[in-house]
Amino acid sequence: MMKGVPKMLLVSVALLAWACSLASAYDPSPLQDFCVAINDTSSDHAVFVNGKFCKDPKLATANDFFFSGLDTPRDTSNPLGSNVTLLNVDKILGLNTLGISLARIDFAPYGLNPPHIHPRGTEILVVLEGTLLVGFVTSNPDNRFFSKVLYAGDVFVFPIGLIHFQFNVGKTNAVAFAGLSSQNPGLITIANAVFGSNPPINPDVLAKAFQLDRNVVNYLQKKF
Amino acid sequence: MMKGVPKMLLVSVALLAWACSLASAYDPSPLQDFCVAINDTSSDHAVFVNGKFCKDPKLATANDFFFSGLDTPRDTSNPLGSNVTLLNVDKILGLNTLGISLARIDFAPYGLNPPHIHPRGTEILVVLEGTLLVGFVTSNPDNRFFSKVLYAGDVFVFPIGLIHFQFNVGKTNAVAFAGLSSQNPGLITIANAVFGSNPPINPDVLAKAFQLDRNVVNYLQKKF
Amino acid sequence: MMKGVPKMLLVSVALLAWACSLASAYDPSPLQDFCVAINDTSSDHAVFVNGKFCKDPKLATANDFFFSGLDTPRDTSNPLGSNVTLLNVDKILGLNTLGISLARIDFAPYGLNPPHIHPRGTEILVVLEGTLLVGFVTSNPDNRFFSKVLYAGDVFVFPIGLIHFQFNVGKTNAVAFAGLSSQNPGLITIANAVFGSNPPINPDVLAKAFQLDRNVVNYLQKKF
Amino acid sequence: MMKGVPKMLLVSVALLAWACSLASAYDPSPLQDFCVAINDTSSDHAVFVNGKFCKDPKLATANDFFFSGLDTPRDTSNPLGSNVTLLNVDKILGLNTLGISLARIDFAPYGLNPPHIHPRGTEILVVLEGTLLVGFVTSNPDNRFFSKVLYAGDVFVFPIGLIHFQFNVGKTNAVAFAGLSSQNPGLITIANAVFGSNPPINPDVLAKAFQLDRNVVNYLQKKF
Amino acid sequence: MMKGVPKMLLVSVALLAWACSLASAYDPSPLQDFCVAINDTSSDHAVFVNGKFCKDPKLATANDFFFSGLDTPRDTSNPLGSNVTLLNVDKILGLNTLGISLARIDFAPYGLNPPHIHPRGTEILVVLEGTLLVGFVTSNPDNRFFSKVLYAGDVFVFPIGLIHFQFNVGKTNAVAFAGLSSQNPGLITIANAVFGSNPPINPDVLAKAFQLDRNVVNYLQKKF
Amino acid sequence: MMKGVPKMLLVSVALLAWACSLASAYDPSPLQDFCVAINDTSSDHAVFVNGKFCKDPKLATANDFFFSGLDTPRDTSNPLGSNVTLLNVDKILGLNTLGISLARIDFAPYGLNPPHIHPRGTEILVVLEGTLLVGFVTSNPDNRFFSKVLYAGDVFVFPIGLIHFQFNVGKTNAVAFAGLSSQNPGLITIANAVFGSNPPINPDVLAKAFQLDRNVVNYLQKKF
Repeated sequence: MMKGVPKMLLVSVALLAWACSLASAYDPSPLQDFCVAINDTSSDHAVFVNGKFCKDPKLATANDFFFSGLDTPRDTSNPLGSNVTLLNVDKILGLNTLGISLARIDFAPYGLNPPHIHPRGTEILVVLEGTLLVGFVTSNPDNRFFSKVLYAGDVFVFPIGLIHFQFNVGKTNAVAFAGLSSQNPGLITIANAVFGSNPPINPDVLAKAFQLDRNVVNYLQKKF
Repeated sequence: MMKGVPKMLLVSVALLAWACSLASAYDPSPLQDFCVAINDTSSDHAVFVNGKFCKDPKLATANDFFFSGLDTPRDTSNPLGSNVTLLNVDKILGLNTLGISLARIDFAPYGLNPPHIHPRGTEILVVLEGTLLVGFVTSNPDNRFFSKVLYAGDVFVFPIGLIHFQFNVGKTNAVAFAGLSSQNPGLITIANAVFGSNPPINPDVLAKAFQLDRNVVNYLQKKF
Repeated sequence: MMKGVPKMLLVSVALLAWACSLASAYDPSPLQDFCVAINDTSSDHAVFVNGKFCKDPKLATANDFFFSGLDTPRDTSNPLGSNVTLLNVDKILGLNTLGISLARIDFAPYGLNPPHIHPRGTEILVVLEGTLLVGFVTSNPDNRFFSKVLYAGDVFVFPIGLIHFQFNVGKTNAVAFAGLSSQNPGLITIANAVFGSNPPINPDVLAKAFQLDRNVVNYLQKKF
Repeated sequence: MMKGVPKMLLVSVALLAWACSLASAYDPSPLQDFCVAINDTSSDHAVFVNGKFCKDPKLATANDFFFSGLDTPRDTSNPLGSNVTLLNVDKILGLNTLGISLARIDFAPYGLNPPHIHPRGTEILVVLEGTLLVGFVTSNPDNRFFSKVLYAGDVFVFPIGLIHFQFNVGKTNAVAFAGLSSQNPGLITIANAVFGSNPPINPDVLAKAFQLDRNVVNYLQKKF
Repeated sequence: MMKGVPKMLLVSVALLAWACSLASAYDPSPLQDFCVAINDTSSDHAVFVNGKFCKDPKLATANDFFFSGLDTPRDTSNPLGSNVTLLNVDKILGLNTLGISLARIDFAPYGLNPPHIHPRGTEILVVLEGTLLVGFVTSNPDNRFFSKVLYAGDVFVFPIGLIHFQFNVGKTNAVAFAGLSSQNPGLITIANAVFGSNPPINPDVLAKAFQLDRNVVNYLQKKF
Repeated sequence: MMKGVPKMLLVSVALLAWACSLASAYDPSPLQDFCVAINDTSSDHAVFVNGKFCKDPKLATANDFFFSGLDTPRDTSNPLGSNVTLLNVDKILGLNTLGISLARIDFAPYGLNPPHIHPRGTEILVVLEGTLLVGFVTSNPDNRFFSKVLYAGDVFVFPIGLIHFQFNVGKTNAVAFAGLSSQNPGLITIANAVFGSNPPINPDVLAKAFQLDRNVVNYLQKKF
């Protein structure tokens, strides 16, 4: 089939595959059995779509749907004492278009997965070991706080788009697994997004919004 | 048609209508021309659905699709100096299932619509008068801050689920209109949800997450 | 990173970006924070998707979410005496995948935004000045006409897919803003689509459908 | 299980079932195997949802998914010379939530299914006998007319929301079957909705929109 | 607020709540923060919707989002040697409208979770202990079999609607957790649905479809 | 417009069109009037999306929405005695993004369309001639079998994702047309997917799942 096609054209086609393989995007509900994302290893992207470009389904293998090593404890020696390993479509390319992802969360004693939002996913979490104080806050005007202390074998649901957190209130490490209802649920850590944005938000805005002294805001903006 | 039906049954049917009229819920994409929500005037609800129950389409009138008085300036004499009038499905019952709402936002000089999230809607805003500093922050890990100063006639888009704000940086009042891509976009004011939830979030969580002294957290939790 | 890559390949990649930038398409609900459409300036397109191709999110700027000048009155010196300025994804590239758009509609005295349909969007309209007679018609078999005269500050909703219009019944100019529940709601002006299609619809069809004399149909087809 | 429940309560529950059976609504994508609509035989409805209320799945039978007699020619002795038999969720209750419907269309010689829109469905049509001129018109600004003459065994697609028609240009009867991509696709016959609405649209609007003399508009409004 | 309402009416309203609480249904994407399903404890249902009716959000508690005891091994002393504990919306009422569920799967040595389909969900599975042979088969015409042997910490994805299974090929018990992309993903065990339906499928159909002797079909239909 | 563009670049662009034309993918609900799929004639694909790439809408013609010859009986001289002609997006490129397809099914006497699943579509079938025994089985735990004998003019609905079949129980040929609620509904023939996958499923799995002797399983795996 490729006979008679000038070599330069073939080079260009290979290039197209390469260039498109630079693209990154995540797509809605599946319109075929699967649509394995093309690996996104370059930072010099050219063209994107809503979701991800896919590779030839004929070239898909079982490894596209596979990930290894989620049984290994993660390093929690950081200020918050927690570590989230999220297997989204960037980590398991076969998840593209399929609307789900999986996370492992490790907590040191008193480790915190701080208040955050998944703009595109609900989370269902099961505790494997340890004791977690968890909770979410509803939207205005009530801002009701739903909270629970979880032990091994306990399950809790954090609805899409609501602020939530998990806090290890035990004296030992804690581990949890969580399913999320999107191949790319997104993550907005409140403190980082508000006080650590790049470039920083006008400090007057934050001082007024959080009723903080401007010096405190400046201090926080340096920290995050 | 109702002949021969015992009066008590008719009373019960009327009651059903009333009881169901207590329900509150907002439904997905429309499966008929419209589905005008049943007015929700009681706080003693019994049964709900995803979205809202609807009234008999034969009883719908033009007034179900109508709202009056959006030209009147709102009172901004509050600590933040801003006032949001959101015409969602609770205010215009005909919006049920139709995926859009409209807001008027008034700002006193230096008034702030503080950092917040609409978990179920993108916002497109047009400035009618005044000068607004606006911006939104992307999700982790980059937390990029996209910002702009807007004048009369300027339009800006705040993508669904991202933290954003509007700040009147002019010396006069400011007014803006905004469309939102849901009949019930929701609103989560970050500071209120985090520091003013009911009941309060464990202060240890907030102190660790925001790297604040516990005294500051306690102070903030009293304020909000 | 690009070291060692032959220049010709780089040219081809740039070309790919350019070629893809020719594409035009609008995508469903967002699967990332945003997906800014690639500008569509050429008429020699090659490849398209459902929605629009996007640019590298790293290259997105605040200007992608911005539009200026919606406060300027539009020229209404045309036969219908109206002028619609629709800010859809073609005008604000950042609207891609976000499901909303914004319009300004200017009316001369007795100006008419004639009966039309948005096949992909509900419209919520607010009158800034003037007096508008507005209405929509429901589908078969009832074809009920919901109508209202609107004044400054009045709001009205036109459900997706239904025939509707706005008519300036005042003696002064009128101006309205409208939100639409799609980044590409589409517009089908009934009279133009029926009598002004290209090529024209068989006149026998229109004569029979509208119970008009063939001469009248021919006359109308010349006009539109 | 019902022991000890006062009879009046049981009556009320039966009444609830009856009252709810009066409801009419069509729901989005299925969240269970099926959700057979409750038959809607009364005109005294009380409560509705987006889509339709469903009956107890345990009470569903094969007849809920069944319809008989689509092989019988329909009467086409009417001014347009056509007759559409649409099997939507009102006719086959089991179609509720399932996103598809089926139609049989009969045409007398020179019979016309006049220009119309399905606001909630694409149509795919197959001709069983006869010769049909069919076509659809795209939205503004191009209003391109896509047209074809179809013979027995020919298939044509009419995209959702676009104006389209079928016209029997043969000297014999014609018959077609059509699938539509919604359990309640809706139908807006352009001429009827525009000139035959109830109450009528202001004639000035129609005269200006269609560039017709007011007398012609009045004449048409009487006819439809 | 309830003053002056006859007691009988209040009884009826309470009854309405009870009657509606008998309903069972699962709804699409959320249109409010959450929509906790009403518990479904009766078999005498009257009215249903697509998804589930919800309770008053004011009455929701943390327990609606909670489940306990997923750390306890399940009994696998059955012919297949496996046991699936699925936490769908029937088990965690708060999952209603949120599009996700969680399962624990226990395997005896050589235990099998036999070929099955989730018609409404993709599955992502992580092995906690043991060794599982897993796989899925694509649709026609290729029917490609994607397979892998999984050990503790390994993750695998089974795309929505495809036939898949897990088989314990180790000599010890195995345990896995799985997220599924629906609050009610559904489960069709192929052998049971084909050979064990109620009433049975005509044996001629199965003999012809599976190229089995009618005696074998009869034998299988008795077994399942 | 192309003046001054080096020829090599033009070649590359043409190549891009060609390479992209190799892509195969099916997209969700339409975001423009239509999005005609690019024809997929090569087996050397490079880049894909969820759904299909589209061609320039300016180049679309009526033929993109057209198919001919569905009135011709199909060959049923095969072991099952049936033949399905599915007009999905691969056959009618204009169906892309439009959510519907059409099938003709021919049956020899005692011909069988064996138990199968459409993972992405509900089917509505109308019998043109002959006598069909049809049925579907619900999901676990009930596996209820809904069945009916259909004659000419009878219509039946097979809900999305459920196992179903059609069996000609008459002594003459039978013909049916069917609409399916997706442009790419997919087809999983149970017997083929289970016993005829490539490579074969481990026979121990099938022997245990279907309670068959391993010899029978081996025999079946050779047959399919």
